[in-house]
Amino acid sequence: MINVGIVGATGYTGIELLRLLSGHDAVELKVVTSNSEKGKSVAAVFPGLRSHIDLEFVEHGSKQLESCDIVFFATPHATAMHYVQNLLNQNCKIIDLSADFRITNPSIWEQWYQEKHACPELLDIAVYGLPELNRSQIKDARLVANPGCYPTAITLALLPLIEHGLIDPEDIIADAKSGVSGAGRKAALATQFTEISESFKAYSVAGHRHLPEIIQTLTNVNSGSSVNLTFVPHLVPMNRGIFATIYVKSINQSLELQKYYTAYYAEEQFVDVMPEGSHPDTVSVRATNLCRISVHPAKNKSQPTVILSVIDNLVKGAAGQAIQNMNIMLGLEESTGLVIPAFIP
Amino acid sequence: MINVGIVGATGYTGIELLRLLSGHDAVELKVVTSNSEKGKSVAAVFPGLRSHIDLEFVEHGSKQLESCDIVFFATPHATAMHYVQNLLNQNCKIIDLSADFRITNPSIWEQWYQEKHACPELLDIAVYGLPELNRSQIKDARLVANPGCYPTAITLALLPLIEHGLIDPEDIIADAKSGVSGAGRKAALATQFTEISESFKAYSVAGHRHLPEIIQTLTNVNSGSSVNLTFVPHLVPMNRGIFATIYVKSINQSLELQKYYTAYYAEEQFVDVMPEGSHPDTVSVRATNLCRISVHPAKNKSQPTVILSVIDNLVKGAAGQAIQNMNIMLGLEESTGLVIPAFIP
Amino acid sequence: MINVGIVGATGYTGIELLRLLSGHDAVELKVVTSNSEKGKSVAAVFPGLRSHIDLEFVEHGSKQLESCDIVFFATPHATAMHYVQNLLNQNCKIIDLSADFRITNPSIWEQWYQEKHACPELLDIAVYGLPELNRSQIKDARLVANPGCYPTAITLALLPLIEHGLIDPEDIIADAKSGVSGAGRKAALATQFTEISESFKAYSVAGHRHLPEIIQTLTNVNSGSSVNLTFVPHLVPMNRGIFATIYVKSINQSLELQKYYTAYYAEEQFVDVMPEGSHPDTVSVRATNLCRISVHPAKNKSQPTVILSVIDNLVKGAAGQAIQNMNIMLGLEESTGLVIPAFIP
Amino acid sequence: MINVGIVGATGYTGIELLRLLSGHDAVELKVVTSNSEKGKSVAAVFPGLRSHIDLEFVEHGSKQLESCDIVFFATPHATAMHYVQNLLNQNCKIIDLSADFRITNPSIWEQWYQEKHACPELLDIAVYGLPELNRSQIKDARLVANPGCYPTAITLALLPLIEHGLIDPEDIIADAKSGVSGAGRKAALATQFTEISESFKAYSVAGHRHLPEIIQTLTNVNSGSSVNLTFVPHLVPMNRGIFATIYVKSINQSLELQKYYTAYYAEEQFVDVMPEGSHPDTVSVRATNLCRISVHPAKNKSQPTVILSVIDNLVKGAAGQAIQNMNIMLGLEESTGLVIPAFIP
Repeated sequence: MINVGIVGATGYTGIELLRLLSGHDAVELKVVTSNSEKGKSVAAVFPGLRSHIDLEFVEHGSKQLESCDIVFFATPHATAMHYVQNLLNQNCKIIDLSADFRITNPSIWEQWYQEKHACPELLDIAVYGLPELNRSQIKDARLVANPGCYPTAITLALLPLIEHGLIDPEDIIADAKSGVSGAGRKAALATQFTEISESFKAYSVAGHRHLPEIIQTLTNVNSGSSVNLTFVPHLVPMNRGIFATIYVKSINQSLELQKYYTAYYAEEQFVDVMPEGSHPDTVSVRATNLCRISVHPAKNKSQPTVILSVIDNLVKGAAGQAIQNMNIMLGLEESTGLVIPAFIP
Repeated sequence: MINVGIVGATGYTGIELLRLLSGHDAVELKVVTSNSEKGKSVAAVFPGLRSHIDLEFVEHGSKQLESCDIVFFATPHATAMHYVQNLLNQNCKIIDLSADFRITNPSIWEQWYQEKHACPELLDIAVYGLPELNRSQIKDARLVANPGCYPTAITLALLPLIEHGLIDPEDIIADAKSGVSGAGRKAALATQFTEISESFKAYSVAGHRHLPEIIQTLTNVNSGSSVNLTFVPHLVPMNRGIFATIYVKSINQSLELQKYYTAYYAEEQFVDVMPEGSHPDTVSVRATNLCRISVHPAKNKSQPTVILSVIDNLVKGAAGQAIQNMNIMLGLEESTGLVIPAFIP
Repeated sequence: MINVGIVGATGYTGIELLRLLSGHDAVELKVVTSNSEKGKSVAAVFPGLRSHIDLEFVEHGSKQLESCDIVFFATPHATAMHYVQNLLNQNCKIIDLSADFRITNPSIWEQWYQEKHACPELLDIAVYGLPELNRSQIKDARLVANPGCYPTAITLALLPLIEHGLIDPEDIIADAKSGVSGAGRKAALATQFTEISESFKAYSVAGHRHLPEIIQTLTNVNSGSSVNLTFVPHLVPMNRGIFATIYVKSINQSLELQKYYTAYYAEEQFVDVMPEGSHPDTVSVRATNLCRISVHPAKNKSQPTVILSVIDNLVKGAAGQAIQNMNIMLGLEESTGLVIPAFIP
Repeated sequence: MINVGIVGATGYTGIELLRLLSGHDAVELKVVTSNSEKGKSVAAVFPGLRSHIDLEFVEHGSKQLESCDIVFFATPHATAMHYVQNLLNQNCKIIDLSADFRITNPSIWEQWYQEKHACPELLDIAVYGLPELNRSQIKDARLVANPGCYPTAITLALLPLIEHGLIDPEDIIADAKSGVSGAGRKAALATQFTEISESFKAYSVAGHRHLPEIIQTLTNVNSGSSVNLTFVPHLVPMNRGIFATIYVKSINQSLELQKYYTAYYAEEQFVDVMPEGSHPDTVSVRATNLCRISVHPAKNKSQPTVILSVIDNLVKGAAGQAIQNMNIMLGLEESTGLVIPAFIP
C-alpha cells in the first residue's frame, strides 16, 4: 500500500483531496497537517468526514510526513517551498497544489508573488503537472507543480490551436469566470454570503497571478515564440466551477475545428469535446475531473472563433488533477479514484 | 452480476440512483426508462453522465425490465402501482421510491393522493423500507416501499423515544425544512430560481402527504396507540437537505438522552448521533446516506426536549436508502456503494 | 429640517438606515460615523450610495453628533451605552438599534451579554420601541430601544393572544429562521458564501440573546404572569428575512382567530394579517416595513394553533422600525419614508 | 395628473414598473393588464404589492387603456405590435419595453424573431429610447422602443469610442453576463432553482436577438460604417444584473480614456464613470437606474482596452429606463421617481 500525506488539509482543495482519496483504493492516507487545527481530529473539524477519516491534524513540519511515499501540499503559496527539499531528501515524492513551483523563472515568480523564492534550485526538477501535455515527464517526476485552476481550463482549450499554429498567437482573449471556492477557505468580508449573493464582478483586470503561468505554458507549446493573451477573471456567486470563454483569430478558416478537437483529445479520458453547437455548463462537470470543451468556429474571417471550456476548480483544477498526477507517478491506471459522475443538483 | 432497472430515471431521485449505482460494484444497470425522453441516450439528456452510463431511455412499459433482478421506481406517485404486479410475476424485486405502497390502508392513501389505488392487494406484501426499523422484513421482501424524505428524518429522530414510551405521544411537533430538489425536476413557476432565491416559506400547514406516513409508522412503534404529531414543512432556498426540528415532552426527566440515543443507534452505520450540544448542518450530510441527530434535553419540566435531525433528501431520503434496501434484499454488505463523504462546498 | 446622525453606519442596519433616510423628505442626514472607515467618503466605501450620500465618516465620539436632533446607533451591542448619556445631555434624542437598552433588568442583560452595563440608570427612561405596543410612550421618549429582529416577528404574532389570555402562556414554541444579514457585516468563516450556500442549521438551541427580550415583553403584556417560551433560531441561505413558525395551545377553541387578528391589527399600517389559509413568504416583505401574519387555527383540541410571521430583518426588524419610531417621536405621519413595495425578485 | 397604463404587468419588468411607478409622484397608475390573471387584484397575485396597488388586472385589449396618457408594454415580443396603432389613434403615447419596434428594418426583425411584423409602417415613427443617445427625439416621440438590457449596457460602454472613431469598429468583443430574471417570469425547466444554482454557462453563441439591435445603434453612431461585434451572452446564478466585459482595439493609444469617458458622460445622471482601476459590481447598481462604467486602457499596442459596464437589467435595462423615457416625453425632471440607492444586501 502507498502511504500518502496532505500538508494543509483544511482548505477547500485539502478537503477535496480528503474526499477523493477516501475513495481511492490503492493508497492509504496516513498524515494530515494543519498548523491552525493541529491536535484536533479531522472529524471534529469537518463533521461531514466523520467515519471516513480517522486521523488527527499534526503540524506542517511533522516528521511523520517523511514516511509517506507521496505528499500533497494544499497550502497557500510560499509555504511548500520551505518544506519540499527535506521531504525529497527522504525520498518522498511531492505534488504541490500551490503556485510555488509552477513558474520556472524565479524572478517572474517573485515579481507576481511578491516574495523571495526559498528554493529556486528545485524549479529545474519540478514538472508542470498537466497530464495532457506532460504525461511522460510526470511519470518520472519527483516534484510536480500542479497547475492553477484558470490555467488548466484555458490551456486545455488552447493547446490544440497553439501546438499546430492554427491561430494568431498575438491575439487571444480569455474571459474567465470562477466560483467562490477559488478564493479559498478563510474569513474575508468580500466573500461573505451577503456580499457575494447577487454580485457578479471582474477582478484583477490589471493582472492576475495565473497569467504568467498560462503564458509560460503556451509559449513553450508555441516553440518559444511569444504568445499574447488578455486574461480577465470574474467572480460568480456559486461555490464551484471555472468557465472560460476564449476568443481567438483562426489562421486557417477551412480547417474543421470540431473534428480536429475531437481527434486531438480522442485518447484523453478527462477532456471531453462536446458535440457541435454545445454550451457546456459548470454543473455538468461538478465533482468530476473532466474538462469539457466546446468549439464555435468563426462565421467569417473577421470574427473570432469562440472556445468554451469548463472544469470544477477543486477537481480538475486542483485535487482531482493532483490525484491524476499521482496515479501517473505511481504507474496506476490514470483514472483510479476519479471515475465520478457529476453531482446534480 | 445482478441486473438492475430504473423506471423514471429523469427526475432528481432517478439521476441520484444513476450516480450512486454507477459506483456500485455488485450490480449492473441494464434498463432506464423515461416516457418523455425515450429513444435518447442518458448522456444526451444529462451531459454530466457522459461516459458513465451508456444506455438509452426506453418506455416505462418496456419488456426489457422483466429481465432485471431489481427494479427501482423513481416515478411520481400513482405510476408504479400500474406496473408492479407484472414485474413481480416475472420474479423481479421492486423498490418503489414513490408513495404508492407506503400507506397500508388504501382508503387513507386514496384520501391523501386523490386517486383510486390500482392494486390495493399488494399493500399487504409491501414492506416499509426503513432499514433501522424493518431490516429483517426488508431482507425477505419482494416489494419495498421506500420511505419519504420528511418521514425518514422525522421517524429516525423519534423512534428511540416512541419505542420505549419516553415521551407524551400526544404532543409532538415537527417543524421541518426542505431544499428545493424535494419539489422534483419539472417546470414550475413557484420553483424558478427567481422565485426561490431570497424566499423562505411554510407550505401545506393544513396537511401534507407525508403526515399519514409518519403517523402510521409511529403508531405501529407505539404498539398501536395513537400518536398526535403536528407537522409543518418549509421550503429553503438550497438544492438539497432536510432539516427537522422536533419538540417533544419527556416523561422521564432523569434519563440521560445523549447516552440513550448513542446506545440505541450504536450498530447503525447510517445514523450518526452527534456529540452533546451539537448543531448538525445539512451540508454535513450532503451526498451521504447519513442521518445525523442531535439531542437537546429540556432544561426543565415544562420545556420541550429538542431533537435536530438532518439528511440529504435525495440520498438517505430517497436513492441512497433505496440502495441500502437493495443491499439488504440481496444479502450484500449494507453499505455497499454508500460509503461516501459529504460533498464540500 | 430635522438633523439626523447615524453612529456605526457601515453595518447592514446602518446601510439600510442610509438607504431609507435618503428617501425621507422630513429629515436631513448630517453625520455618519465609523471608527474603521473614518475619513473616507460614504460613496468610496459603498459605491451603491454614490451620488446619494455626500458625507464622510467621522469617529463615533465626534462632537458633530451633538448638533443632531436624532441620533441612531447601529453599532454592535455594548457600544451605544458609552455614548448615549452625553448626547442626551445635548438634547439629542436617541434610537438605539442595538441591544443595550432593551432589557430593563441590568443583571439579566449582563448575564446574556457577558459585560457590565455602563449606564444602568438610563434603562428606566428607555422605551422599548415596538410601536404597535408602546406607541404613546415612544411619542415622548428621549431614548428608544429598538427591538431585535426575532423579537419583532415573534412578539407581533403573539401579542393578540397573550394580551387577552387566549392561550396557555406556559406552552409556546417559536421555531424561527433568519437570513444571513442578521449575522452582521463582518469577516467570519462561518458566514462565507461557500460555507452558507446549501447549508441550513439551527443554532443557539441552548439559549439565544433574543429570548429574554421576548420573554420580558410577553410577561409585561401577560400582566406580569410568567410566560414560558421555547425559542430555536435557524440560519437560512438567503440575505434577508425572518420567518417565525409559532405553536400555541388555544384556551378558547371557539374564538374565530382570523377575524380576531384582523380586527386587532385593523389600524396598524405595518402589520398585515393575511387571508385565511395563507402562507406568507419572506420575499413578500423584502425591503418593506411590514410584518405579515397568517393564522392557522388548531384542527382539534390537542393540536396547536400555528401562527406564521414574516418580516425583513433589516427593515421592520431594524432600520425601518427605527424610522417608524423616529416619525412617532417627531410627530410625523408614522409611515413617512416607509411606503415601499416589496423588491421582486 | 398623468394617467398611466401597463400592458402585461405580471412579468418581472411589469412588476418593476409597478414598484417604481408606485413611488412616482407625477403620474397615476390607472390600468394594468394581464390576459392570464384578468379579474384578479394585483394584491392577490403579488402579496408584496398589497396596499400599494389597488387595481384589478384587465385584458390586454381593454378599452380602459385608451384613456391613458402613456401606456407601457411589458409584454413578450410580437404582442405590442398588435395593439399599438389603436392606442396611438386614441392619442396615447407608447413606451414598448419589448423588441417589437427596436429594429428599424422589418426584414431583419422578422429574421431574428421568426414572425411577420404586424405594423412595419410604425417602425418609422418609433424612437429608440436610449436617452443618452436620442434624448431630443424621445422628447417628441409618440412611440418609444425601449432598449434591450444587453444593448443598454454594451451600447453605453461603446458610444464614446465609436462616436469619435477611437477604436477599430471591426474588432469588438462583448462578453456579457446576465442574472436569471432576464429570462422572464415563466415556468421553465432550465431556469428552475435546482438547475441554475451552481450553474454558469454561455448561451446563444451562434447568435442572440440583441445582436442586431446593438449593431444597428453602433452602425448609426459610426456614421453608417460597418461595425463588427462578437457578442456572447452568459447566464449567472443570481436574480438581477447585467455585466459586460468589452474588449476593443484602440486606435489612439495616447488618449487618456479615463478623462475622456468622465467628460463624455459628465452631464448624464444615470451613467457613472467609476474611478480609474475600478471593478464595478452588479450589486452596486441593484435596484438603481445607473449604468456604471470602468475603463481599463490597454497596457500596450497589441493588447485590447477593457471596458466594464454594469446595470440592473430590470431597471436601467428595462423599467427604469422606460420611466426615464416617460419623464423626458412628459417634460418632467428626467430623474423623477428614479433617485434610488442600491439595495444592499
